[in-house]
Amino acid sequence: MKLPAGYRYSSAYAGIRKEKKPDLGLIVSDTPASAAAVFTQNRVQAAPVRIARFNLTKSRGRVSAVLINAGNANCATRTGDRVAIACCDAVAKHLRVAAEEVFPASTGVIGVELEARLITNALPELVAGLAPGRFDDVAKAIMTTDTRMKASHSQVRLKRGTVRIAGMTKGAGMMQPNMATTLGFVMLDAAVPPAALSSMLTQAVASSYNRMSVDGDTSTNDTVLVLANGAGGVQPDEKERKKIGAALTEVMEDLARQIARDGEGARKLVTIEVSGAAGDDAAERIARSIANSPLVKTAIAGSDPNWGRILMAAGNAGVALDPSKVDIDLQGVAVCRAGLAADFSEAELKKKLDAAECLIRIVLHGRGTGSARFWTCDLTEKYIEINASYRT
Amino acid sequence: MKLPAGYRYSSAYAGIRKEKKPDLGLIVSDTPASAAAVFTQNRVQAAPVRIARFNLTKSRGRVSAVLINAGNANCATRTGDRVAIACCDAVAKHLRVAAEEVFPASTGVIGVELEARLITNALPELVAGLAPGRFDDVAKAIMTTDTRMKASHSQVRLKRGTVRIAGMTKGAGMMQPNMATTLGFVMLDAAVPPAALSSMLTQAVASSYNRMSVDGDTSTNDTVLVLANGAGGVQPDEKERKKIGAALTEVMEDLARQIARDGEGARKLVTIEVSGAAGDDAAERIARSIANSPLVKTAIAGSDPNWGRILMAAGNAGVALDPSKVDIDLQGVAVCRAGLAADFSEAELKKKLDAAECLIRIVLHGRGTGSARFWTCDLTEKYIEINASYRT
Repeated sequence: MKLPAGYRYSSAYAGIRKEKKPDLGLIVSDTPASAAAVFTQNRVQAAPVRIARFNLTKSRGRVSAVLINAGNANCATRTGDRVAIACCDAVAKHLRVAAEEVFPASTGVIGVELEARLITNALPELVAGLAPGRFDDVAKAIMTTDTRMKASHSQVRLKRGTVRIAGMTKGAGMMQPNMATTLGFVMLDAAVPPAALSSMLTQAVASSYNRMSVDGDTSTNDTVLVLANGAGGVQPDEKERKKIGAALTEVMEDLARQIARDGEGARKLVTIEVSGAAGDDAAERIARSIANSPLVKTAIAGSDPNWGRILMAAGNAGVALDPSKVDIDLQGVAVCRAGLAADFSEAELKKKLDAAECLIRIVLHGRGTGSARFWTCDLTEKYIEINASYRT
Repeated sequence: MKLPAGYRYSSAYAGIRKEKKPDLGLIVSDTPASAAAVFTQNRVQAAPVRIARFNLTKSRGRVSAVLINAGNANCATRTGDRVAIACCDAVAKHLRVAAEEVFPASTGVIGVELEARLITNALPELVAGLAPGRFDDVAKAIMTTDTRMKASHSQVRLKRGTVRIAGMTKGAGMMQPNMATTLGFVMLDAAVPPAALSSMLTQAVASSYNRMSVDGDTSTNDTVLVLANGAGGVQPDEKERKKIGAALTEVMEDLARQIARDGEGARKLVTIEVSGAAGDDAAERIARSIANSPLVKTAIAGSDPNWGRILMAAGNAGVALDPSKVDIDLQGVAVCRAGLAADFSEAELKKKLDAAECLIRIVLHGRGTGSARFWTCDLTEKYIEINASYRT
């Protein structure tokens, strides 16, 4: 699928991470793009989050360049704000754009000073390398413990032309969806004013990044940014914007699923569908409680159809529920009916649970029609291995 | 230390668990004891929890016998209530006490029918085996994935005699403190009316079982029961009750620590102390957020002084905090001052973190003097191993 028009991409190795592979990414829009972003809900926020927020306000929702580094979160550091500002200034100078139109983002270890010099030294190479086709190079440069590059593409055919959407994201650990999670960058080539783009993003995040969890932790750096530069020549009306919004949501759901699937140590993508709850909120709380239960996640890792743990986790959501009405299906197999064990072959279901994707469906048969879908992954020994030695 | 007067204990193998070691425990008070209990906050509650609550109300806070089985939670089963009632009735008949004075408790797998027959068949042996000295046998019979028996003893010398306290508990997994967690049974030989005993228990639970977490999950069967039978001959006045209450709290804190230390797969006991918060509640939420963060727990497992994760987890508690004021100490070593890295030797601290006990101290320097202490354990590969194959 063709990439959105009017963007260029580049990556370089700045020496921030030890391993010698690109740790710096740059996305440039040839004309200032409309921009909307959501940020982490953590009370501890990294310097790039503060500066990105500030720049976005100052530029009134315009972004010309996105500078992303992996290997260092630039969080809880003495020089955090100064470093983020210096790097944005340097990019602005190289590209001859306003400093507030540069959007910074970082991911990596917390509490270690980030040297601005490493980034500014790499900038000439980074800028020289800018090319419309190097989208994947940036998607790779922002990876940390991710095992796979994560990208998703879409296009919307409208009467007056085609709108192209391309998103990239990184994930892996420290991941629980609250407003925004992880780093995500989605480019559109339609012309959408910042306010309209912001409401499209809010809707898309609600059913994608906010419905995904790896380990229940929320990072200090989480950022999802959407750009719309109008370079594709399409100026959608309100009805067409809805179509574009739907496509944006699909792209972001796809990215969120990719994050869950590639959670640290994960072998399986787990989809949780809750219905029959008092409201969508109640359904979401129950889905989240199941998604964050280490006992459910380890049972899935072991292909163990231990539905009692799913019922237990549902009961822990702080939401009223009548266990004697609850139905649970695993991989389409009825395992619990009216709160009691259904008649199923454990051996056969165990085999089905060995698949790379696992579906947990829970129907509460309560008074409402609230529902929610949520994504997570299984919890394996590998998660421990990765996280017991991340820094050392 | 001498055991409380007027109690007898017994255990037997009823064939509920596969492995042939005692899975049934019985505690008998020679005269009906005052009783107070707290139960799980999970919306899904096991049959023994329902029946124990019912019996306690009917008997107006009197208990003559406690029947505990391991290997099956008797939760989410067709015959749950009937089985729990039948077993209590059978114990009542054997001991010639009122059925409502029998307190049932179960722990084990959820959703598998428990055969009453297995228990009633074992009752003659169980009752015949009752002896004042077999306290440890019951403490061992109630173990599931626990690697160690958990017991704690205390005595309070008063003018009119000595009051003896003996507590046992089981823990290991599916463990997050909300009201009551896990199974715990504490026997006193003072004479304390049920209402007074209940408020002593509420106080003791608040700083012990409610301040401990292994994996953030709350079981469907959690029960903590305190008995006071007066067999020691001491009838404490209000001032003396306070002393006894303090000793009860110490015993229960000791039991809670033992549960955290023996969390599934745990190699380390982690104590978290938070101070300088707006209130005790805020401090507790921050402590709990740190205790339940898989990233903090895996860092501890790897002896990694990754204080950034502790700051991140504190920021996720949903409590206002100013990161630029936060101090963090690990094993007594300053690792973070005013939200920034302190100057410490990573190699030396790594060695200190290899100890069996780990202390995380975090001072918020906020406007209040709220504080909290919390216990948890590290998260290791072994937790996954245990829980990926619990049923199979």
